[in-house]
Amino acid sequence: MDDTPGLFGAECSTDKIAYAPAMNTLPTTVIHPERIGEEVYALVRELFPLCRSITGAGTRETLSRLGKLIPLTIYEVPSGTKVFDWTVPREWNIRDAYVKNSRGVRVIDFQKSNLHVVNYSVPVRMRTPLQELRKHLHTLPEHPDWIPFRASYYTESWGFCLRHRDLEELTEGEYEVCIESTLEDGALTYAECYLPGEHEDEVLISTHVCHPSLCNDNLSGVAVAAFLAARLQARRRKYSYRCLFIPTTIGSITWLARNEDKVGRIRHGLVLACLGDPGRSTYKKSRQGNAEIDRAVAHVLKTSGEEYEIVGFTPYGYDERQFCSPGFNLPMGCLMRTPNGRFAEYHTSADSLEFVRPEALGDSLTKCGRVVEILEGNGRYVNQNPQGEPQLGRRGLYWPPAGQHQLPTEEFALWWVLNLSDGNHSLLDIAEHSCLSFESVRRAADALLPHNLLRPAIE
Amino acid sequence: MDDTPGLFGAECSTDKIAYAPAMNTLPTTVIHPERIGEEVYALVRELFPLCRSITGAGTRETLSRLGKLIPLTIYEVPSGTKVFDWTVPREWNIRDAYVKNSRGVRVIDFQKSNLHVVNYSVPVRMRTPLQELRKHLHTLPEHPDWIPFRASYYTESWGFCLRHRDLEELTEGEYEVCIESTLEDGALTYAECYLPGEHEDEVLISTHVCHPSLCNDNLSGVAVAAFLAARLQARRRKYSYRCLFIPTTIGSITWLARNEDKVGRIRHGLVLACLGDPGRSTYKKSRQGNAEIDRAVAHVLKTSGEEYEIVGFTPYGYDERQFCSPGFNLPMGCLMRTPNGRFAEYHTSADSLEFVRPEALGDSLTKCGRVVEILEGNGRYVNQNPQGEPQLGRRGLYWPPAGQHQLPTEEFALWWVLNLSDGNHSLLDIAEHSCLSFESVRRAADALLPHNLLRPAIE
Amino acid sequence: MDDTPGLFGAECSTDKIAYAPAMNTLPTTVIHPERIGEEVYALVRELFPLCRSITGAGTRETLSRLGKLIPLTIYEVPSGTKVFDWTVPREWNIRDAYVKNSRGVRVIDFQKSNLHVVNYSVPVRMRTPLQELRKHLHTLPEHPDWIPFRASYYTESWGFCLRHRDLEELTEGEYEVCIESTLEDGALTYAECYLPGEHEDEVLISTHVCHPSLCNDNLSGVAVAAFLAARLQARRRKYSYRCLFIPTTIGSITWLARNEDKVGRIRHGLVLACLGDPGRSTYKKSRQGNAEIDRAVAHVLKTSGEEYEIVGFTPYGYDERQFCSPGFNLPMGCLMRTPNGRFAEYHTSADSLEFVRPEALGDSLTKCGRVVEILEGNGRYVNQNPQGEPQLGRRGLYWPPAGQHQLPTEEFALWWVLNLSDGNHSLLDIAEHSCLSFESVRRAADALLPHNLLRPAIE
Repeated sequence: MDDTPGLFGAECSTDKIAYAPAMNTLPTTVIHPERIGEEVYALVRELFPLCRSITGAGTRETLSRLGKLIPLTIYEVPSGTKVFDWTVPREWNIRDAYVKNSRGVRVIDFQKSNLHVVNYSVPVRMRTPLQELRKHLHTLPEHPDWIPFRASYYTESWGFCLRHRDLEELTEGEYEVCIESTLEDGALTYAECYLPGEHEDEVLISTHVCHPSLCNDNLSGVAVAAFLAARLQARRRKYSYRCLFIPTTIGSITWLARNEDKVGRIRHGLVLACLGDPGRSTYKKSRQGNAEIDRAVAHVLKTSGEEYEIVGFTPYGYDERQFCSPGFNLPMGCLMRTPNGRFAEYHTSADSLEFVRPEALGDSLTKCGRVVEILEGNGRYVNQNPQGEPQLGRRGLYWPPAGQHQLPTEEFALWWVLNLSDGNHSLLDIAEHSCLSFESVRRAADALLPHNLLRPAIE
Repeated sequence: MDDTPGLFGAECSTDKIAYAPAMNTLPTTVIHPERIGEEVYALVRELFPLCRSITGAGTRETLSRLGKLIPLTIYEVPSGTKVFDWTVPREWNIRDAYVKNSRGVRVIDFQKSNLHVVNYSVPVRMRTPLQELRKHLHTLPEHPDWIPFRASYYTESWGFCLRHRDLEELTEGEYEVCIESTLEDGALTYAECYLPGEHEDEVLISTHVCHPSLCNDNLSGVAVAAFLAARLQARRRKYSYRCLFIPTTIGSITWLARNEDKVGRIRHGLVLACLGDPGRSTYKKSRQGNAEIDRAVAHVLKTSGEEYEIVGFTPYGYDERQFCSPGFNLPMGCLMRTPNGRFAEYHTSADSLEFVRPEALGDSLTKCGRVVEILEGNGRYVNQNPQGEPQLGRRGLYWPPAGQHQLPTEEFALWWVLNLSDGNHSLLDIAEHSCLSFESVRRAADALLPHNLLRPAIE
Repeated sequence: MDDTPGLFGAECSTDKIAYAPAMNTLPTTVIHPERIGEEVYALVRELFPLCRSITGAGTRETLSRLGKLIPLTIYEVPSGTKVFDWTVPREWNIRDAYVKNSRGVRVIDFQKSNLHVVNYSVPVRMRTPLQELRKHLHTLPEHPDWIPFRASYYTESWGFCLRHRDLEELTEGEYEVCIESTLEDGALTYAECYLPGEHEDEVLISTHVCHPSLCNDNLSGVAVAAFLAARLQARRRKYSYRCLFIPTTIGSITWLARNEDKVGRIRHGLVLACLGDPGRSTYKKSRQGNAEIDRAVAHVLKTSGEEYEIVGFTPYGYDERQFCSPGFNLPMGCLMRTPNGRFAEYHTSADSLEFVRPEALGDSLTKCGRVVEILEGNGRYVNQNPQGEPQLGRRGLYWPPAGQHQLPTEEFALWWVLNLSDGNHSLLDIAEHSCLSFESVRRAADALLPHNLLRPAIE
């Protein structure tokens, strides 16, 4: 692109549209997002009851179930392992937790919702007056019917979360408090689905698997990642793919610390989270800001025919914080629908099976699939007849009756590919520049290649 | 421009206007476009009846008439000559063509309009029922009074074009079909007007001369190019100029194939087409996108005081397709009024002597003239008193009573030229950056040069 | 910034704001602009009556008074000294000037306002009819109650300025004209306040001191510069500061000619003028356009919570014309409120003690102070734990209960500083990119430094 200043960068302008046919936005394979969505949703529903955390049995069980769908390698990293500036914490497990009133009735009951106990609470068994107990109770006065989600991973503490309405009904008196948890040396558990491709260069997909019964954040990401991996397994792969199912923060830091030697292979990456709510798709760009993954996702969203949002990198959010820390600076963005903290249900019991939608899950998976198509199909080519246009007509590629000027997308795509295939422009560059879909441009290249009108550029 | 990041690129902002006087948009010589336009229009009218094609007698006759106005060298390239991926086709000539009804009446008659026969139709003489004939008839149902223009240059075929209204009146029965054409070895004819300048570096002007009785596309381009050449002949020229009158596609490919050794001399280029309709001026940028020609034409349009449109390069349109193919990538844009395919009359009998306007032709020629002034007058200079401002007052160049702050454009231009003449900024850069007209900036440089306050930069 | 294309340049977008807390726009020390403004205003009032010019006693007396506030070195440059393309003019002094009518009444009286005499008028003593006198009288018909300011520094001339209303009341007859001025070899006087810092690299502040009884242009600039220097004297300084109090044009050219060897030390610079009117702040960028001073002032204005305007460099205005001439091209912009020529009172008696406002003067000084804080506090750092985030929690720097997502500005700032401190991004880069105030970002760096999580980058 160096020799063509000003050629890129502009959005698809109305004039370009006016000359060209309507943008061909349909992906090659038309997909029914509802139907796929139902399968993804079924997985979310299956995983919902498990009490996950950044360590422990709930997460281990979650990974075990995913292992039935896709080939997973499970890693157990012992508590106390140093991972960069951090230490793998002790493993947390919980069997039961409740608060009983003086009549022995469970007024707060972990068995009803695992959100009721502050995640990583230390074991407790005591009797305490309401006044003391209150210091350990968390509610959402602005949403009195929702149970908040709270955790205390790195500070020893305990507590309960409950509906504000229920808190208000607690009467004075003594309560029996019980948290049957353990916080002991064990392991941090994570899983990898590694799918080798023609090249060692990798695409890294990462999703956090540490939240308890919350659907959008992040069973949606877990389930979409699992189905994406299943699809990748079934297709020819230029790149190798590595899908990580990890606890947030400590999980990505642990993975990075144990895989420093592999990081150099990562050519593109995507963090998946919050992919099931009814909001529009949001893509948060990598720290690099203009990596191929950023442009691929942006192209998919722009040509989706739906509303979307693309936001700049920020060092808060999900595990892109770690993957995009300055010591790694990986080309890795984050695909979401409504981002964390921007939907009211976030980190509450309202992030439930009702909140996520099969069609949203299916649409998110379809978009991930189109991103993969671009990464796999992108490339630079060299026009083998660069002096003037080749005579497409005698090759049966094109020749409408002269005088007619309504041309199909396919022929515009042929010309764009020929004109910009100078070894500097990738097919994605060409799609962006021509305001055609990547799929049209890729098909044009595929039509020209057998005629030796193009050859792949030497990378 | 390297040492001044951020200096350029912004449009003329309101603040710059607020500080500076009203933009001086008048070219040096005020021109009456209507009067010039009448002369250009007369040439269009003279050339209108000839039946041009990509080869043949009509085109040869057209070039011969242009040769009376400007010095032309005519080239005849034999049929069968290989030109890159293409082959020069056989020569097409036509004497007569018609369809007669059973009463012997010509219901379609080439003598009335050469658009009635599909251009490059093979010879035909037959009787055929209407049903069969219909397969060879072309109309425009949405414009029932217009005859479409059709051609079949590279596929042997024949056909007639007619008003849809006339088609509907044809009764069943047998018709006599006659096309007295020849398609034989001959030559492709094109012409060059070469005007040597002080330097061998060239400005290439190209216009297509292959369309039959159609005015805007492209007798307008042919006539404007001819008058531009006539003007260029009359003036001192820094650059050499080469004006091509060629058939579209095969003509530019042929010229490029025969002149590969000359292409390196082309510093700027312009394709001229559709310059006579009443629409606003449109400039389609070169593939390079920010070449000096692109900036020169943009400056002329921006300072014209009229509406205009500047569009990005696309690999469809006129012969810029060939000149800007990646193997040449010449700095060559296309100046039009309403672009091809965007006016309803395009490629129909409605693109007539009524459709093009003398004042539009004149205005287009004037704009071409201003573009030439910029190309000829542009250059980089070095301020010889770069430390602080020189004292213009004692040189009689400037000194208003201190305290007055309403200054004429000329003095703003002096300051801008002095401030930005660091060897990196051309006068066109300075005009763009200062929001002054190129002409003002050029005059300021001309005022400073005799005082040795500027010297030309070493290129 | 080279390795992160596309990272910068965009304005703070709504999405970034949506994720981040409200911008922290308050400077570290909250300042009451009215109170400071009163002090600055008192200095304007003190200096107002003096009849300043580009040379002479009025300017000398002005500098002498400033010398009581700040350490000043006064320079006297003899008339006739060559300074680049210019020559230091003869010194102008004036004792009295008037026009008396036939009854001996002073109808124009220098003692009432020094604007009444054209600055640099040669001595005159004559009797003349009104008709002749008129050629030497200047008024503003559109503002009949205002006296215009006029000067004739480089052309020998004389004249009077008066209210148009008063001109209209002059009756025919003979008038006595007297200008008791001298125009003799002497000196051009200017002053420097040099405040050495830890480094020899300098910040240059320049303000013009040559206008007679006009307040906004430029006693406002003079007084703000003096108070800024007083503050700078009282603080620790990384940079050395040099504040110039000079006559416009000839003063800056003289200083540049005498200090060519020092110019290379100037890292940042600011021309101060028109800082007391009630209009919004305006910053005119340096010729470089994106120098650190340009970005620092822009940041102060953007985070001021008030309206402001940033305009591109133009080679007309104040002494930035000279400092930004191509032979110097210093990174030096101009801070104003309403720019010269854009307020009606400009260069008239209406630019009076009523026109400038204490609160505007105080606000301008506060903004200058924040610019200094940025220049002093800016720097590049290197994250010492670049692989993933460091665990801020165990250092007491941060760890809110997981699940809460409303974070204070300070913690967003910590993350941004860690993420972008790769040695390429300055704290000002980080502030711009994160949409946080420079002060927040600086405080975050100060919090991280004692924990060895950052080290200064090697410059």
